[in-house]
Amino acid sequence: MKTKLFSSEDVTQIVRRIGLDRLMRDAIDGIDNACREFDESRHYVPVRSGCEYTRPTVGLLERMPAMEVGEKVVIKMVGYHPRNPDDHGLPTILSTILIFDTATGHSLGLVDGTFLTAVRTGAASAVASRVLASPESRTLGLIGAGAQAVSQLHALSREFDFERVLFYDIDAAAIASFPRRCAILGLGDVVLQPASCADVVAGSDILCTSTSIDVDAGPVFEDVGTRTHLHVNAVGSDFPGKIEVPLGLLQRSLVCPDFTAQAVNEGECQRLTEDEIGPGLVELVKNADDYVGHRASPTVFDSTGWALEDYVIAELLTRYGEETGCGTDVELESISGDPKDPYAFLHGALDEAVSGGMRLAGGAKRAGS
Amino acid sequence: MKTKLFSSEDVTQIVRRIGLDRLMRDAIDGIDNACREFDESRHYVPVRSGCEYTRPTVGLLERMPAMEVGEKVVIKMVGYHPRNPDDHGLPTILSTILIFDTATGHSLGLVDGTFLTAVRTGAASAVASRVLASPESRTLGLIGAGAQAVSQLHALSREFDFERVLFYDIDAAAIASFPRRCAILGLGDVVLQPASCADVVAGSDILCTSTSIDVDAGPVFEDVGTRTHLHVNAVGSDFPGKIEVPLGLLQRSLVCPDFTAQAVNEGECQRLTEDEIGPGLVELVKNADDYVGHRASPTVFDSTGWALEDYVIAELLTRYGEETGCGTDVELESISGDPKDPYAFLHGALDEAVSGGMRLAGGAKRAGS
Repeated sequence: MKTKLFSSEDVTQIVRRIGLDRLMRDAIDGIDNACREFDESRHYVPVRSGCEYTRPTVGLLERMPAMEVGEKVVIKMVGYHPRNPDDHGLPTILSTILIFDTATGHSLGLVDGTFLTAVRTGAASAVASRVLASPESRTLGLIGAGAQAVSQLHALSREFDFERVLFYDIDAAAIASFPRRCAILGLGDVVLQPASCADVVAGSDILCTSTSIDVDAGPVFEDVGTRTHLHVNAVGSDFPGKIEVPLGLLQRSLVCPDFTAQAVNEGECQRLTEDEIGPGLVELVKNADDYVGHRASPTVFDSTGWALEDYVIAELLTRYGEETGCGTDVELESISGDPKDPYAFLHGALDEAVSGGMRLAGGAKRAGS
Repeated sequence: MKTKLFSSEDVTQIVRRIGLDRLMRDAIDGIDNACREFDESRHYVPVRSGCEYTRPTVGLLERMPAMEVGEKVVIKMVGYHPRNPDDHGLPTILSTILIFDTATGHSLGLVDGTFLTAVRTGAASAVASRVLASPESRTLGLIGAGAQAVSQLHALSREFDFERVLFYDIDAAAIASFPRRCAILGLGDVVLQPASCADVVAGSDILCTSTSIDVDAGPVFEDVGTRTHLHVNAVGSDFPGKIEVPLGLLQRSLVCPDFTAQAVNEGECQRLTEDEIGPGLVELVKNADDYVGHRASPTVFDSTGWALEDYVIAELLTRYGEETGCGTDVELESISGDPKDPYAFLHGALDEAVSGGMRLAGGAKRAGS
């Protein structure tokens, strides 16, 4: 029984053939569609849970499961290790996605979630922004110019006709390398312009915050001089005490969490009372007409990262794998033709083990009588 | 960055080189040792959680994480699908184990848990039985002669000098095939004898129940005629309402759960009051001398399956992999030298995507100033 393994090389081949733009386009449409079809009786998406620790480093490993009843369970194991870039040259967020068949429990597929998380997080912001942000938005602001900023820009630039991107990071090296990292996006005439944090905020029609701000150290910008119609995609807030958006701005805004039950624990919503929290992403997408009127005033998409987004992107990659013939079949499960014999797959391999011999009682022959 | 993948073929090669007996021996010692060293400040093992469903079939997919602080997180995804053997020719229990590095969140390894679950479940019974059962036990009884019965027999026969094994199953085919499935264990002169359920219970010094009894349909044997010193390893009870052991026998016994918080939800302990539940496996092993006196009266090991056992067996397999040079290195994570560039691994593969060109503002050159 095969498990489809998508290695980094497989994913590279898939994206080479599908194209980065179609991937992002399909991710946006896929998340939008999943929200439209979301039904609590058919979709099981619990709040994520995990292990936090301070040894050997400050880190967090979380489990993000999502199930469509009668179909699959997708679980993403996601690590958040803010010291990864400096200590190991690795992304802050590393993750692994597994796909299971609910008919048998068989492991259908395995794929890295690191790249796909960046894509789906960008795509989710695009889904929310096309309801909450003005279609006339011309300036995108980015606070935090790390990995997530690249995919936020990628996704939003598929939906909006930006003229310029203002970006800021506390790390000068991140600022310096950002344009190079965006070269792959094919942004055409869009001007990429580093700016002070205040200028990014003041100049943006849409703003994305995706920082590794420490717990209790936020917000990452001051509540002054924003445009009246500003839409914020708050991407970095995903941990108790970790916040990016000034409280005053939040309280003046229509705040839409991706997944309310999770956002009140670890998103921007953790600082809001229930009546200060607007519709979740599902409601926003299902009844978009009810919310487009808010485009004239501040809006915030509180993106903590929703497991349903991982379900969508895992399904998408699997479909691409079938379409392109990429992916590696692995016999992972050590099983055999006899479900009642846990060691059957070893038969032949272990003939020597039987050499001890064994005497069967006559009774064994009466079995079943 | 490599992920070590242990395919079914890799596991076969490892067991061929290590030997099934050393594997079981090391699993028993490993679980025993993990109990001795268990420390709530260093080990994080939550109660498992999961998705239950009735479509497309009755099933359950659970997450079983375990962490040793400063070391690794091991998570087993385990499926329980009682119709698997009849409907798909697959084991009831299928599972997949992932190993993560808490220093970075990197996925260190992936291995099937189906075979390893059978091994570690047998090993856990052996660990409990060597405290709770008489070393003079000569007859092992098995109620349920499926996959778990094979590994229970395997493990217990490493610890006890059995003369005969009495076994019973509601399925005549399982009874008929049981001796053949045990041939690999090298049991020497041990007599394998099918018997009625009542005769198995009456004749056993140690009894293992490992059935797929339906919810609310238990117990699987009647509370009559057991030996006074009977020790039961109750392996099959692992779901609310699913029980195997008669309540009266439980209440007369010292009942030791593998993991109390889990056993009260889904083990035999779900029917007991707090004062009817004895020490957990950790306490039992750490202070064995306090409990060996109970060997003269009935004892029950309530084995629901503990994630720490999976941690032990995953570590063991990884060590064997290093020792034997088995296992396949896979580049799973789509990352590159630049942790801030989620698409960097695509560079070169997607040169055409850049052809659209991009104009950089002069400001980009002032980055970092």
